[in-house]
Amino acid sequence: MTMIKNLGLIGVGLIGTSVLLGLSKKNLVSRVYVYDTNSENIDYAIKEGWVDEKSTIDEIAKKCDFVIIATPTKAIINVLKQLAYNLNPNATVIDVGSTKAEIITYTLQNFPHLKSCFVPCHPIAGWHTNGPHSANPNLFVNRNIVITPFNETPSERLEFVKKLWDLLGAKVNLMTSFEQHDKIFSALSHLPHFIASSYMEYLMKNVHFRDNIDLGGTGFRDFSRIAGGSAQVWTDIFLSNRDVLLEQISNFETHLNMMREFIDSGDKLKIMDWLERTSKLRNSWKGIIE
Amino acid sequence: MTMIKNLGLIGVGLIGTSVLLGLSKKNLVSRVYVYDTNSENIDYAIKEGWVDEKSTIDEIAKKCDFVIIATPTKAIINVLKQLAYNLNPNATVIDVGSTKAEIITYTLQNFPHLKSCFVPCHPIAGWHTNGPHSANPNLFVNRNIVITPFNETPSERLEFVKKLWDLLGAKVNLMTSFEQHDKIFSALSHLPHFIASSYMEYLMKNVHFRDNIDLGGTGFRDFSRIAGGSAQVWTDIFLSNRDVLLEQISNFETHLNMMREFIDSGDKLKIMDWLERTSKLRNSWKGIIE
Repeated sequence: MTMIKNLGLIGVGLIGTSVLLGLSKKNLVSRVYVYDTNSENIDYAIKEGWVDEKSTIDEIAKKCDFVIIATPTKAIINVLKQLAYNLNPNATVIDVGSTKAEIITYTLQNFPHLKSCFVPCHPIAGWHTNGPHSANPNLFVNRNIVITPFNETPSERLEFVKKLWDLLGAKVNLMTSFEQHDKIFSALSHLPHFIASSYMEYLMKNVHFRDNIDLGGTGFRDFSRIAGGSAQVWTDIFLSNRDVLLEQISNFETHLNMMREFIDSGDKLKIMDWLERTSKLRNSWKGIIE
Repeated sequence: MTMIKNLGLIGVGLIGTSVLLGLSKKNLVSRVYVYDTNSENIDYAIKEGWVDEKSTIDEIAKKCDFVIIATPTKAIINVLKQLAYNLNPNATVIDVGSTKAEIITYTLQNFPHLKSCFVPCHPIAGWHTNGPHSANPNLFVNRNIVITPFNETPSERLEFVKKLWDLLGAKVNLMTSFEQHDKIFSALSHLPHFIASSYMEYLMKNVHFRDNIDLGGTGFRDFSRIAGGSAQVWTDIFLSNRDVLLEQISNFETHLNMMREFIDSGDKLKIMDWLERTSKLRNSWKGIIE
């Protein structure tokens, strides 16, 4: 069942190619056009036989009925600028960026006509390696997707996008407020990345710690894993959600200080209470069922 | 090859029973005596056929040539008090506690005669569930063990303990300074646990975050995993390494503030530099080869 005649993929990285492979595997797509600033990524996708034509953003805008913007977060606005006035009027556009306020505010202010065709999406999925070499059609199976539609998004278009994610195996969540989206993910994703990377900086600056990191066990491994992620991807995310992140860092520091007081007081019952309630909350998490 | 005639296990939890099973599986042990304040743990070990006799600390002290203290960290000193004057003069005693300064300082001050038989050990191994039900003879395979011997530890006794861990598959590390041990593990283990549990407290106190934690992805899962650990075990560790931990929290907060400044400045190159060096350090970690 073909649901997409001409698919345009802008940004041939892990997420974009994983969406592409997931849809192609289910025979939902007729033709595939791709664009990336990195020609190695395009060559790889062509070599793998995933792609019909290397293209430009202009051509994709004109030809395609479904466009996926899967560039780093900070590049999305530039892509929107290039798409905005050439876009096939029947096209549906999605992005897969981790922050939403910046691009949605920009769209509302500069390209209000895109409100009916651009459906902002955020798949909560990734891998420890990046790029099309890591593409995986099952990357979204049992993973959450958050869609933050505009008030003006036509319901059939929203249903179409929901259906596609559903076919990729994802759990679709709608969030009407993009501010709330960015706040929740600043807390659940950006802040942990910021903390883990600050923690690695703290280890790095102490020669005894740095030289002994291999003595860290599974706790160290898991706690610090995200700090090994792509510097480029996370610089973009930090900057594009800067104000909200700064607010979360301050709130977190307040709690860190409170917990420091608990340790300082030596009050066993207080510490025990705290660790019991937080361990209970953590163990209630059921975000991913493997 | 029997290396241990009478093994005494005090504290029938995950670590203790995993050591026991690992040694028994290799036929290194003739008889096994156990003691625990929790009779369910003892009953479980007896039912599984791991144990010859339910015993007392006094009996274990008198009878056994190898004693493992595998209680929560804060209980080790109490066990040492009960062992100290009854101990079989040929016995070797090890503990498996995560902090060392407190028990070693206490031993030096109160039971200097134990310096030749007590060999403090710290296996960097654990599991996400506790108790003898989770016992695993392979828990220590490819895991680091840190031994912090006394100056007076006879070399043949040290070699004996090293050999046992070696037979369990562990990588043995010697550290001559217990202060350095506690400092390094405050940085690689206690501080991450403190941070992750403070982070969960921060989420708990915000109803929007708490109600949406299931939207957290693999990053959230791994970063927060340790916060799900045993409140009792970690209260003990925090309190037994309190001063060093407080110092590390302060140092970490200094780095957290510096990194906050980076975000606040919006300086893309600075942020990128930071994330590149910390991601490189994290990806150089080779503590556990699965």
